[in-house]
Amino acid sequence: MKTLRLDLPAHQYDIHIGPGLLSQPELLTPHLSPEILVVTNETVGPIYLQNLLELLRQQPVVQRVKHVSLPDGEQHKHMGTLDEIFTRLLELGYSRRCTLLALGGGVIGDMTGFAAAAYQRGVNYIQIPTTLLSQVDSSVGGKTGVNHRLGKNMIGAFKQPELVLIDTLTLQTLPDREYAAGLAEVLKYGLIADAEFFVWLEQNWRKLLEREPGAVAEAIYRSCALKAEVVADDETEQGRRAILNLGHTFGHAIETWTGYGAWLHGEAVATGLLMAADLSSRMGHLESSVIDRVHTLLEQAKLPVRSPDGMSRDDYLQLMARDKKVESGVLRLVLLKSLGHAIVTSDFRVEDLYLTIDHFQS
Amino acid sequence: MKTLRLDLPAHQYDIHIGPGLLSQPELLTPHLSPEILVVTNETVGPIYLQNLLELLRQQPVVQRVKHVSLPDGEQHKHMGTLDEIFTRLLELGYSRRCTLLALGGGVIGDMTGFAAAAYQRGVNYIQIPTTLLSQVDSSVGGKTGVNHRLGKNMIGAFKQPELVLIDTLTLQTLPDREYAAGLAEVLKYGLIADAEFFVWLEQNWRKLLEREPGAVAEAIYRSCALKAEVVADDETEQGRRAILNLGHTFGHAIETWTGYGAWLHGEAVATGLLMAADLSSRMGHLESSVIDRVHTLLEQAKLPVRSPDGMSRDDYLQLMARDKKVESGVLRLVLLKSLGHAIVTSDFRVEDLYLTIDHFQS
Repeated sequence: MKTLRLDLPAHQYDIHIGPGLLSQPELLTPHLSPEILVVTNETVGPIYLQNLLELLRQQPVVQRVKHVSLPDGEQHKHMGTLDEIFTRLLELGYSRRCTLLALGGGVIGDMTGFAAAAYQRGVNYIQIPTTLLSQVDSSVGGKTGVNHRLGKNMIGAFKQPELVLIDTLTLQTLPDREYAAGLAEVLKYGLIADAEFFVWLEQNWRKLLEREPGAVAEAIYRSCALKAEVVADDETEQGRRAILNLGHTFGHAIETWTGYGAWLHGEAVATGLLMAADLSSRMGHLESSVIDRVHTLLEQAKLPVRSPDGMSRDDYLQLMARDKKVESGVLRLVLLKSLGHAIVTSDFRVEDLYLTIDHFQS
Repeated sequence: MKTLRLDLPAHQYDIHIGPGLLSQPELLTPHLSPEILVVTNETVGPIYLQNLLELLRQQPVVQRVKHVSLPDGEQHKHMGTLDEIFTRLLELGYSRRCTLLALGGGVIGDMTGFAAAAYQRGVNYIQIPTTLLSQVDSSVGGKTGVNHRLGKNMIGAFKQPELVLIDTLTLQTLPDREYAAGLAEVLKYGLIADAEFFVWLEQNWRKLLEREPGAVAEAIYRSCALKAEVVADDETEQGRRAILNLGHTFGHAIETWTGYGAWLHGEAVATGLLMAADLSSRMGHLESSVIDRVHTLLEQAKLPVRSPDGMSRDDYLQLMARDKKVESGVLRLVLLKSLGHAIVTSDFRVEDLYLTIDHFQS
């Protein structure tokens, strides 16, 4: 087991990474309280829930362990589903000393975290991410929230968990498409902050695609460490943290346009990474060979490398204008100065942006 | 004009109190940003909105001033109405640098504050409370949120404003019933923390009922000062802050039982204060003469001093069990040790609680 410690001004917590951690209740013990609600979904629940509930019931401090199972998928990440968590908590009569456990992927983590931020104005929560994407991304850093029909992740809170438990064995049951979507985010960390890690990923890509446990654990650890470092610098995204959104402005536009759930988040980010690299290269920052290297890795992982059928330039521009990085009407994008070095900038030619969007049209 | 400064560990802000402050835009200027959304309701909007929008448009820093008008009343303080604010913000394409202005009573303030906490994970907001209740209570201290059908204020956030602007002239247009409801909260401050203020209120009650400007301003200032002192001690209600809820556990039960909006919040608190005083007296803490003094003041203000018709002991017990102060299934109440001294305790005889509830039945 490896442990990363996230040190934020007002809150510290551990991220444990390793195989079989879901069977080690002693890791959870210090963070439990008398009332526990496990939030999971219809896909992950049947695999891990019973065992987890049993372990929790054996903990002396725990008096009540209940769960709520939500529908699976990004299209359910909205206020209506969030209300199912609130209703369950209120029907159970849970107090502000209760603890929520998020058992599932990024959607479950984001909704559970926001529910924890808002229920009785704030209760504790623990992240147990079970997808590669959530393990390397959404479970680290405290960004929580839900989608609005007019924009992704537009309603939410910064809310740090008490603990993140990453059991790498959960990846063994993950569908290929979801696993690959997670690899797109792993790639992102190399691109934005660590050229050496990017090269390591190229060298170990085959092993990662085969889910070789050692390589997977290492990729998760290095991804989380890179994210933790960026987040510790800038918890509420006043500045540098925005580099974590490389490819996301394009990706969110794709997700909104296709309707949440049609493309997985990581799939939209995959195409978005390539588009961001393409634009960076058009601006003369990035060697074009990097685009090819990213393209090769994405293709090998069977990730999309083109825009959705029929999504026009105007569709992109309209949806990108709603990005959270827009300031006073000016679009800012995360771009690459070089491999391993990202910047947030509004300094790009709109003609280059048009060329990039057009270039990726199907 | 009098100014109170609220000094919290992570945030400081001013509360300005005086007549005509809504016509002094220079108080707002330092806290404005290019994108402004005024959130108001159908009752207050027609009186103050046009003038405020005009003043805001004259501010050089402001580029866009828009508003949204919500239906008036506690029964609309829920997720559905909150979504009207989010939808408006997203349709306008407002960024995370926008500022929300809450122009209205406690319902508008609570919803605007929570919208500001959650929109893009947090934007700034300013409180301009226009009812006595919101001026002395909900606009100070950063408690924001909405009701759930299973409990009042169950979904929300601690979110401090950038500024609170209390224009005492707005009270001149307030309906009698709402004004009296505010006086119940004013009385609360005397009861929980300042016996001298309670005596001052008794001496000035006639003037206050007649809305004599000097007396009203003084009552607001002293109420806000008492609240600010308690909140600065304990921003997120880990301990002492809970004394501000004197009468509220009974009051919330009444509000939930009657359906939000039937009784005004301050009306429910009025009866709740009396019930809390009654229970405190039964426990041998409080002289029974204090109950009579509170009773007299409430009656003079035409505030309710009995439970709603038909609300049973079981109704109370069931609804009170959902209070946010419940810990591990144990109900805690705010009670009076003496006039001006409140405590939070679970140390009361349930038989006394039954007697109190029965005593107030209509």
